[in-house]
Amino acid sequence: MLHIQIIQVGKTKEKLFKAAEQEFNKRLSKYAKITTHTVEDNGKIMNQIEKGAFTVALEIKGKQFSSEEFADFIKRRQFAGEKLTFIIGGHLGLPVEIVNDCQAKLSLSKMTFTHQMVRVFLLEQIYRAYTILEGKKYHY
Amino acid sequence: MLHIQIIQVGKTKEKLFKAAEQEFNKRLSKYAKITTHTVEDNGKIMNQIEKGAFTVALEIKGKQFSSEEFADFIKRRQFAGEKLTFIIGGHLGLPVEIVNDCQAKLSLSKMTFTHQMVRVFLLEQIYRAYTILEGKKYHY
Repeated sequence: MLHIQIIQVGKTKEKLFKAAEQEFNKRLSKYAKITTHTVEDNGKIMNQIEKGAFTVALEIKGKQFSSEEFADFIKRRQFAGEKLTFIIGGHLGLPVEIVNDCQAKLSLSKMTFTHQMVRVFLLEQIYRAYTILEGKKYHY
Repeated sequence: MLHIQIIQVGKTKEKLFKAAEQEFNKRLSKYAKITTHTVEDNGKIMNQIEKGAFTVALEIKGKQFSSEEFADFIKRRQFAGEKLTFIIGGHLGLPVEIVNDCQAKLSLSKMTFTHQMVRVFLLEQIYRAYTILEGKKYHY
């Protein structure tokens, strides 16, 4: 089971996004071990990254994947036996030094979304990736 | 006040997305008149489009906008005094004839999201567009 670590800056304050995060975390629990670290500010990100983890910064100018390409990316990490760490900035985004340090930069959209929505989108895409890898029908 | 019509195929079944849709509709009510038409299937879309409306199909292969470009697009429609109609397909997407008939094709992401999430993203981006046009600080 892949260990996926999500490091995020700032708490999710909106109830409805919190509920969505919980729901996708629940659905994902059968596919991957997800641990979420919520830190107060950007300065506390680096300490949270697990040793040897493959790091991915969520960054609007990063690379866009289709859901199938993203599923393939997840599969490759799982085969490599690596931990996978996604880093989501707060409302001011991530500092350029952290982005540059990450092994991959992932952009979900050219549009700016709130960091709280980004968390839900990312979890949904990880969940979707597993359903793609399983060949499972998923839409609702 | 711009009249924005959203035509969508299939009901939102997930409670948490329904709550998010309601929340953004509420926030948007001070900026635009939003009417939502939920139809059962693709065959019922065309009848719902208001005469003279500028039509936008939500389509993964469409054009991506940054949030600022999208705000500018909304502004131009408002100045032109047009109605603006967004069309969101169901879980099988929109038929190519309807997409081709639309005046614009908007892609929110290269990734596939559930149509229920697309509705929330779209409402959030319309809301964000108005906060950009107002020069208002918006992040949470």
